[in-house]
Amino acid sequence: MDKKTPLILITNDDGISAPGIRTLISVMTQLGDVVVVAPDKPQSAMGHAITINSTLYLNKISKNGDAVTEYSCSGTPVDCVKLAVNEILKRKPDLCVSGINHGSNSSINVIYSGTMSAAMEAGIEGIPAIGFSLSDYNWDADFEPTKPFIKQIAAQVLEQGLPDGVLLNVNFPKLKQDEIKGIKIARQAKAMWQERFDKRQTPHGKDYYWLTGEFVNQDHGQDTDEWALANGYISVVPVQFDLTAHHAIQQLNTWNWNE
Amino acid sequence: MDKKTPLILITNDDGISAPGIRTLISVMTQLGDVVVVAPDKPQSAMGHAITINSTLYLNKISKNGDAVTEYSCSGTPVDCVKLAVNEILKRKPDLCVSGINHGSNSSINVIYSGTMSAAMEAGIEGIPAIGFSLSDYNWDADFEPTKPFIKQIAAQVLEQGLPDGVLLNVNFPKLKQDEIKGIKIARQAKAMWQERFDKRQTPHGKDYYWLTGEFVNQDHGQDTDEWALANGYISVVPVQFDLTAHHAIQQLNTWNWNE
Repeated sequence: MDKKTPLILITNDDGISAPGIRTLISVMTQLGDVVVVAPDKPQSAMGHAITINSTLYLNKISKNGDAVTEYSCSGTPVDCVKLAVNEILKRKPDLCVSGINHGSNSSINVIYSGTMSAAMEAGIEGIPAIGFSLSDYNWDADFEPTKPFIKQIAAQVLEQGLPDGVLLNVNFPKLKQDEIKGIKIARQAKAMWQERFDKRQTPHGKDYYWLTGEFVNQDHGQDTDEWALANGYISVVPVQFDLTAHHAIQQLNTWNWNE
Repeated sequence: MDKKTPLILITNDDGISAPGIRTLISVMTQLGDVVVVAPDKPQSAMGHAITINSTLYLNKISKNGDAVTEYSCSGTPVDCVKLAVNEILKRKPDLCVSGINHGSNSSINVIYSGTMSAAMEAGIEGIPAIGFSLSDYNWDADFEPTKPFIKQIAAQVLEQGLPDGVLLNVNFPKLKQDEIKGIKIARQAKAMWQERFDKRQTPHGKDYYWLTGEFVNQDHGQDTDEWALANGYISVVPVQFDLTAHHAIQQLNTWNWNE
């Protein structure tokens, strides 16, 4: 095997100055050459949005000679990956890691998450990719306990690669390092957000809304990411971007489509 | 079975005044009571973005007594569905249809599409949902040929429902009605966008980028949505929001995770 130093692309959705991405950078510099391309402002809940109707800016943040090359980008997390791959990196990276997200991206949150969309975009481009999230929304969250696990998971993906069309969604419980029981490979729990809109009025008398909501886990399986997190484990869900419900094709073929 | 009139929610990502959604409204009024909640401006390529860090506005566009109730919303397509279900509709709709999108959402485009994300959001909320798209980006595209097929597909979903956790991604080829060969149930083709960034300079000398690209279909299967569309068929892909790559779980369990 080629012993060249791995090239690792790092992005996130909380913005380039978030503590979570700083932790991720500190771990990844132990594993390879690191290039960071991350949004210049928070882009949470952007899903897989891309910027097609406005311009994109890249700003080089790091100075020549810095150990890590860093760019901020005016676009979404997915834009960051596309720009990195096409405009910044001289070769396809060996790994793309996204996060560490401030807040969980387990279960259905994978759909809304900018962190996971960036990892998915890398996966679509054929790059082994991992999204990391910590179940703690605080800006001052303690990311220290995640470090050895992130290093182990990333090192393993660098060594073994990932199955074709698959990326990893890794979520950490909010626990101290010695309280973490280990890693569980899991499936996405069946859960959803029960929305509640907070309806208010502007000072000028116009109604407006804030989206709020409560996370509802309807899934009692012990093989889910939610179960793993609630029981002290780190959840690792293999995620795919082939959204075809293959099991439903046969059933739909029994319908009367062409009469 | 209850013979009450079906309640149908309509949304899109091209904005409430797009010809595509107008066509969809004209068909759906033949099948039930229609409520429209759609973005007040184009929101293409928004993926599954939601608005959590800014306010949301709803504007009732229709007048009392109008056949169709219409609201425009300041948010994303997913916001529209959430607001409709939680703030506007008195009961859960029997069907949510999104589109007709101006441009294809076949293959990997399902990931980037605001049209499909709105349908997916409805699916997550337990509402039978269909996204419709026409392979023609023109504002003046001819939607007439899609009408009888849309009516047939929507009527069938209203009658039979959809499998749990499944929505439909329906794409129309750009063909006259008598050129359309029929409907094919298909899987999402393995394809991607080969990006090319158009790098320009502002009048003030600062670099900026436009995202452009070319769609590359790497999939030669005859059971894909791309094959169906290229061969004169309407493609119907059952889509799921459980992104777990179930086939990869066993393989990942052979890795050495907890040493």
